[in-house]
Amino acid sequence: MKAKLNFEHFRPDLEDYLPSLSVDCVVFGYKNEALYVLLPRWTGSQYWSLPGGFIYKDEDLDNAAARILKDRTGLDNLFLKQLHTFGRTQRRNVKELSKYLDYFDINTTTQKWSRQRFISVAYLAMVNPDTFVPISDSLSDACEWLPLSELPQLVFDHNEIIAKAKEYIKIQIKYEPIGISLLPDKFTMKSLQKLYEVVLERKLDRGNFQKKVLKLGVLNKHEKLITGGAYRSPYLYSFNKEKYQEFLKSGIGFLH
Amino acid sequence: MKAKLNFEHFRPDLEDYLPSLSVDCVVFGYKNEALYVLLPRWTGSQYWSLPGGFIYKDEDLDNAAARILKDRTGLDNLFLKQLHTFGRTQRRNVKELSKYLDYFDINTTTQKWSRQRFISVAYLAMVNPDTFVPISDSLSDACEWLPLSELPQLVFDHNEIIAKAKEYIKIQIKYEPIGISLLPDKFTMKSLQKLYEVVLERKLDRGNFQKKVLKLGVLNKHEKLITGGAYRSPYLYSFNKEKYQEFLKSGIGFLH
Repeated sequence: MKAKLNFEHFRPDLEDYLPSLSVDCVVFGYKNEALYVLLPRWTGSQYWSLPGGFIYKDEDLDNAAARILKDRTGLDNLFLKQLHTFGRTQRRNVKELSKYLDYFDINTTTQKWSRQRFISVAYLAMVNPDTFVPISDSLSDACEWLPLSELPQLVFDHNEIIAKAKEYIKIQIKYEPIGISLLPDKFTMKSLQKLYEVVLERKLDRGNFQKKVLKLGVLNKHEKLITGGAYRSPYLYSFNKEKYQEFLKSGIGFLH
Repeated sequence: MKAKLNFEHFRPDLEDYLPSLSVDCVVFGYKNEALYVLLPRWTGSQYWSLPGGFIYKDEDLDNAAARILKDRTGLDNLFLKQLHTFGRTQRRNVKELSKYLDYFDINTTTQKWSRQRFISVAYLAMVNPDTFVPISDSLSDACEWLPLSELPQLVFDHNEIIAKAKEYIKIQIKYEPIGISLLPDKFTMKSLQKLYEVVLERKLDRGNFQKKVLKLGVLNKHEKLITGGAYRSPYLYSFNKEKYQEFLKSGIGFLH
């Protein structure tokens, strides 16, 4: 007997979805001085994939992305930025998919639906992994943070989508202090610099970095971090959300 | 008798297209110290729209964009940058479309096809309007450069798509010397500065602008422009394409 795959949070009728179109979400997290990607694993397989899904015919694209991310991972109320739309004819390896689908008790309509060509709109979110616990949905038997630097081969073109997202934040971090969503509420200047070094993949000069970041005027300075060490304790900072928003609107970069 | 609308360069069978998906191209041109948008007008109507079309089932998305732009305007071999995917449920006013389609002798299948919901992937190109003559296709009775600052109400959400494209180049021009595709091969520093002022919608300091642009090392200096005027003649410049490419790869901005 074949295993059952439970499409519980999918509407019963695939006709409710727009054909040919899907959404995939890249969620970056930052911990242990490294970037991570949140990835579900398909039930009963070794296939890791981006959390993705389909768009209802009566649903705005941006709303679909938020719903899909919530359905697949439990993450809610995140800022999702549309990244890029992936539309190569060969982006989905249907052979690989068939092998997987054959394993399950899925009806012919669903099989046919899954095998059509999909163009996928990718969205990007950044979160602090300490602030929530990912939840596997019924299509996956795991939902985990995998380190960006050691990703396995994912399904379809999902490695390519993640590479594009990484490239995007590497450029974007020069113009926006993106740490606001990746770091804890309070952080040291050293840990902010480390985040930038990880994303930019190069060392930064400490004095120069601090000068540039403070000049932006988007940080609040707090009490010192009590380290108990022999060296002097560093100050803690947090982002001033109002000034941060003003900064984003100004469209001025800073890290050159 | 109803007028005939000629779908000559469309394959006879609409089944050859991916459903629910379209492509729209924003082409910016620069002349008379202003930005223009290339827009076809639907045959027998006052409806201006972006040049757009559908994606063949066996065609990569990026290739579809290039083909569609060529089919609809005659423009070929342009660098097309994917801009954004527009997916609001209400982005196409089907009532308006119906009034238009009713005017023509179009069969029921085409009518039904045209009235479905489309999510549209927008692409952006920038060209020097002096370098080619736009050609109307069989679906349009005009294909013209309309000034960005005085656009009429276009069909669907096409004004919104253009606004997004304008916002994009306004940010992008700070990090890339985009004039390479908008200006004639040789230009004065004054005309380059004017382009930047038009895109950024603010005045720039002449000395500071010249200093920053020359520092990039992407310009070749040529002979002086002979003006015959009483003032000293300005130098002509051109973009050094190799150095320009190197600059783009470096990902360093400059106009802060």
